[in-house]
Amino acid sequence: MVNNTKKTIDHIESEDFIPNLSYDSVIFGFNGKQLKILILEYHNTGLFALPGGFVKRDESLDDAAERGVRERTGLDQIYLEQFYTFGSMTRSDPQAMERILDENGMDRQKYKWMLDRFLSVSYYALINYDEVTPRPDAFSDNINWYPIDELPSLMMDHGQIVKKALEVLRDNLDKKLIGMNLLPTKFTMKQLQQVYEAILGENLRRTTFQRRILGMDILERHEKLFQGKAHKAPYLYSFKS
Amino acid sequence: MVNNTKKTIDHIESEDFIPNLSYDSVIFGFNGKQLKILILEYHNTGLFALPGGFVKRDESLDDAAERGVRERTGLDQIYLEQFYTFGSMTRSDPQAMERILDENGMDRQKYKWMLDRFLSVSYYALINYDEVTPRPDAFSDNINWYPIDELPSLMMDHGQIVKKALEVLRDNLDKKLIGMNLLPTKFTMKQLQQVYEAILGENLRRTTFQRRILGMDILERHEKLFQGKAHKAPYLYSFKS
Repeated sequence: MVNNTKKTIDHIESEDFIPNLSYDSVIFGFNGKQLKILILEYHNTGLFALPGGFVKRDESLDDAAERGVRERTGLDQIYLEQFYTFGSMTRSDPQAMERILDENGMDRQKYKWMLDRFLSVSYYALINYDEVTPRPDAFSDNINWYPIDELPSLMMDHGQIVKKALEVLRDNLDKKLIGMNLLPTKFTMKQLQQVYEAILGENLRRTTFQRRILGMDILERHEKLFQGKAHKAPYLYSFKS
Repeated sequence: MVNNTKKTIDHIESEDFIPNLSYDSVIFGFNGKQLKILILEYHNTGLFALPGGFVKRDESLDDAAERGVRERTGLDQIYLEQFYTFGSMTRSDPQAMERILDENGMDRQKYKWMLDRFLSVSYYALINYDEVTPRPDAFSDNINWYPIDELPSLMMDHGQIVKKALEVLRDNLDKKLIGMNLLPTKFTMKQLQQVYEAILGENLRRTTFQRRILGMDILERHEKLFQGKAHKAPYLYSFKS
């Protein structure tokens, strides 16, 4: 772990990165029932944060976000969607950054560029948290899934970033993308309703939900899912391509 | 004009700005019939561009975008909405920037930071172009409204930025915001349909449109708009608050 820390920190040289710009990712996890978010806890600081990072001078913004998520969470090839760039004057927290530098044995003078103002491009992702095992990076004691209504207090404006991500997710709920990333290719109406309920944070009436979704003409109906009593078997659906 | 140019250029010192970050604005104009976009033409270069600019170290991203639009177009207090940050490796065009510097009598060495890679946060706005008179800034020969299907070839990835802005506009069409910025407080169903048709770039059937909009339950119906024959007077509507 010590070697790993050393190696990672050596890689963060200011001249390799676009100054004053970071990204942060809100990685939503869903297991068919509960919606959670992936949060890192920095060594010995009690500081909780979204997985984030910097943009290398020779990589695209999207590549940076994907690389960063891979390095900080161990999650590979997850689909990230950019949603907003946060650029207020008050969002940076140099004192928190100093504590993180200190606790990781990083020289405040050498890494003073990290204490400067940062604007942050935010991304969100949706994955099934039963299928992945995130790993904390060298800066963090642990990385954990937190239910969206039980988040710890997050550093800087990360709480606002999560709030905005949830708004965007709710606004985009009827588009195919979100369901497609959280559900198997074929799914039942009940599974789809559970996705909606988890994201909206409220229970929906089965009949109203079904009528509304079918009215949107985005689903294709397939065979029934036979398990147990045949006359109760629900139909399987997929999103129209 | 020469004095004005000098003054503006003196204000652009690299240490005042966040490096490698710019913003660009897609300002949509609508006059009840046609949807247009505001485009600047740089002095003697044949280069057309969206109004854009840099972010000062001591101002928020949103403030920078508002200030920049005011300085570059003369338009004050227009509502801007951020929609995407463009960060590919190939988006910058240092040769075009060199021509702009040369034509404005700006030293390439002194302003070499402008030739570097830039990521750009993009904003869009919606205004009634009959009510405003944009003015070109010191760098530009002119500033004009172009219909969205008759745009000149734009520098860098500004064509892609416009394309994305239109997609976002179409995705958001059913939200109140867009109509509210383009229409008077009270409007007829026909006026609302004209907004939709301009943004979607297609004609809609009156009966289908009316049924769909009324079904969304976002409008409040008011008195009739009497002009000419009373029995043909259309109802006025406003968006529900």
